[in-house]
Amino acid sequence: MKIMLTAFDPFGGEKINPALEAVKLVRPELFEAEIIKVEIPTVFGKSIATALAAMEEHQPDVVFCIGQAGGRFDMTPERVAINIDDGRIPDNEGNQPVDQVIFEDGEPAYFSMLPIKAMVAAMKAEGIPASVSNTAGTYVCNHIMYGVLYHIHKSFPGMRGGFMHVPFTTEQVLNRPNTPSLSSEQIARGIEIAVQAIIDHPDDIFAVGGAEH
Amino acid sequence: MKIMLTAFDPFGGEKINPALEAVKLVRPELFEAEIIKVEIPTVFGKSIATALAAMEEHQPDVVFCIGQAGGRFDMTPERVAINIDDGRIPDNEGNQPVDQVIFEDGEPAYFSMLPIKAMVAAMKAEGIPASVSNTAGTYVCNHIMYGVLYHIHKSFPGMRGGFMHVPFTTEQVLNRPNTPSLSSEQIARGIEIAVQAIIDHPDDIFAVGGAEH
Amino acid sequence: MKIMLTAFDPFGGEKINPALEAVKLVRPELFEAEIIKVEIPTVFGKSIATALAAMEEHQPDVVFCIGQAGGRFDMTPERVAINIDDGRIPDNEGNQPVDQVIFEDGEPAYFSMLPIKAMVAAMKAEGIPASVSNTAGTYVCNHIMYGVLYHIHKSFPGMRGGFMHVPFTTEQVLNRPNTPSLSSEQIARGIEIAVQAIIDHPDDIFAVGGAEH
Amino acid sequence: MKIMLTAFDPFGGEKINPALEAVKLVRPELFEAEIIKVEIPTVFGKSIATALAAMEEHQPDVVFCIGQAGGRFDMTPERVAINIDDGRIPDNEGNQPVDQVIFEDGEPAYFSMLPIKAMVAAMKAEGIPASVSNTAGTYVCNHIMYGVLYHIHKSFPGMRGGFMHVPFTTEQVLNRPNTPSLSSEQIARGIEIAVQAIIDHPDDIFAVGGAEH
Repeated sequence: MKIMLTAFDPFGGEKINPALEAVKLVRPELFEAEIIKVEIPTVFGKSIATALAAMEEHQPDVVFCIGQAGGRFDMTPERVAINIDDGRIPDNEGNQPVDQVIFEDGEPAYFSMLPIKAMVAAMKAEGIPASVSNTAGTYVCNHIMYGVLYHIHKSFPGMRGGFMHVPFTTEQVLNRPNTPSLSSEQIARGIEIAVQAIIDHPDDIFAVGGAEH
Repeated sequence: MKIMLTAFDPFGGEKINPALEAVKLVRPELFEAEIIKVEIPTVFGKSIATALAAMEEHQPDVVFCIGQAGGRFDMTPERVAINIDDGRIPDNEGNQPVDQVIFEDGEPAYFSMLPIKAMVAAMKAEGIPASVSNTAGTYVCNHIMYGVLYHIHKSFPGMRGGFMHVPFTTEQVLNRPNTPSLSSEQIARGIEIAVQAIIDHPDDIFAVGGAEH
Repeated sequence: MKIMLTAFDPFGGEKINPALEAVKLVRPELFEAEIIKVEIPTVFGKSIATALAAMEEHQPDVVFCIGQAGGRFDMTPERVAINIDDGRIPDNEGNQPVDQVIFEDGEPAYFSMLPIKAMVAAMKAEGIPASVSNTAGTYVCNHIMYGVLYHIHKSFPGMRGGFMHVPFTTEQVLNRPNTPSLSSEQIARGIEIAVQAIIDHPDDIFAVGGAEH
Repeated sequence: MKIMLTAFDPFGGEKINPALEAVKLVRPELFEAEIIKVEIPTVFGKSIATALAAMEEHQPDVVFCIGQAGGRFDMTPERVAINIDDGRIPDNEGNQPVDQVIFEDGEPAYFSMLPIKAMVAAMKAEGIPASVSNTAGTYVCNHIMYGVLYHIHKSFPGMRGGFMHVPFTTEQVLNRPNTPSLSSEQIARGIEIAVQAIIDHPDDIFAVGGAEH
């Protein structure tokens, strides 16, 4: 099995992106699978194009995207991506779409094709807080999840895709009072556990409500 | 214009449902529109059937459903309903569907057809906290929103539909430490303001990403 | 009985102070007591001097000070004031004491002389969220509470004093996401209920650890 | 220098107390000081007696007590302990004092004798979230802090004492949605850093409003 892990590049003038750093900490040698790590620009449009190019080049079995949702308390595999961009702040190239459709010929939404409940259960079993999320927002995180699933449904039969949000790392909240976090080690370990759950549940595709019906 | 307001009946052994009580406080005489109030059972399936029967009987121009999301801080018009039931607790008749499609022939999701951003702006302009929400959850609130929009798209051309969550009323949080609320008066007023915004924006249908494209 | 209510003047460039406005809404005619309202400058030192001058002039039976604690969910009568000023931001005249004793000859702390638990119970009985707080912080709110109690213990035998924090009003949180509030009406009503509880419990002085020792 | 670290035994039927486990993880060999670890019963009265016996036996230079405050986000050295017991739940032997003075001949409050701001700064400098707290509550944590400081002021000239609350460990919040935590490793490391700050600031006694009076 070949698993492509994606994470966004640093955003908003920051030098590092902790979610990206956590993905870098994931140890490929743990898995009976090939792990490919791809850095994605935090830009509407370009992010999907970058992921698509990597999907075409590497032909992975799974595309597992990671992003950060500051303010959340736990690891949250996303259930669904919706066909809309609605940014409260500009992306890394200044784009700020408002209520724009992502793909005119796309479904209103795509559900994750990953075993989100098994991923949550596996993380909790190893002491990492996790829960299913029902919204990936309307910014670049929802955008990349939607775009990856759109292209899988259009052009990559047999491929699976999905997204997981991670909280702030502890380093990021030192000057943010009353803000939740997990340590970088916990986040990296949670991603590893989620990857293993994906490997362990190759057929547990959470496929409802989409074009399949 | 004819506007049908729905709210759920009391739930979980409670004698009253504060969201229902707030809907009862809405003053029909404020509007240059006919206001019809419909009580909906907190039951998967039956809730949609009840709404559908009322839609057929009254033929409203707008179906505006109200539900409660305890723990939220403000009034939250919902952007989208997704085609899934996934209950953490049973409904009023003991049903607890897990990861079930609502309508096999439905879209993965339906976007609200109401002017959610104008509703938010109008409420804030009159001092009621409000924001757009991107998830109605996976319980009976998402269920009724999805079902109403499904039937509108299938059978009621020209009709509009949507959903708004309201927070706990202050009475409900007296023994829940550190839980947000609004007063019953604020919630009822917020609903009135949202209704007026719907009347004021008859063409501002937030129609993206659905079957229209 | 004569009750002196104090509230701080507008702070930080604001035109109004919602806690002060709430105190202005308190209806003196409700009570079988004389209500005197005194505005206090948000300034270390001067605030205590202003309160002291009013205490000398009016000779009230009770000094009941009100201040705002943005971020709290409910009405919080304070249990204790401590002998320290430690400001994270400057006051209205630019003073920012750090770890300074308020009165060198004062006790380490003074406990409230008001029936804080009866006040909480009375507010909750009328639908206003309330709880006892064990810290008034180290800014001007703790400062005025400490100063009033210091002077009562030194020079006003038979007088009682205490402090209550109130949350943001709803108007203040319209652009502060996920921030709790109560309506101005709820806050004003809560203060009225607390005043009545003080009248109803003239002997219920919560007197421990103070001048008795 | 000799430093006595205390932590409470398991409470409320739990098999382990994570704060106690964190104290056990503290590595004595890191410090140019002798570290003595003492387990304290979660019982009003007995907890102080146990600490007092250990103070008499070991004659430490510093008594540094640790307790858990579930719901807090960070490590919080406490500024002050107050002369009151007021329990919302019974202790391990069923005692539930309400508004009781701890020591009739004690001060209303004792301030920490430890360098609480230096401790906070040192923890944050190594990536552990921390802030000064102004209330240790009114349960056994405030009780032991008050009791230790009372006895130091009465009978142990030259000895210093203080208390620090730690948040839930991550393991404890797996089934508590939206509850903050730090990892056991972060908490243990934070305690070590705080101990080092105490060693590094032997004269930085935060002494106001206390024994001077």
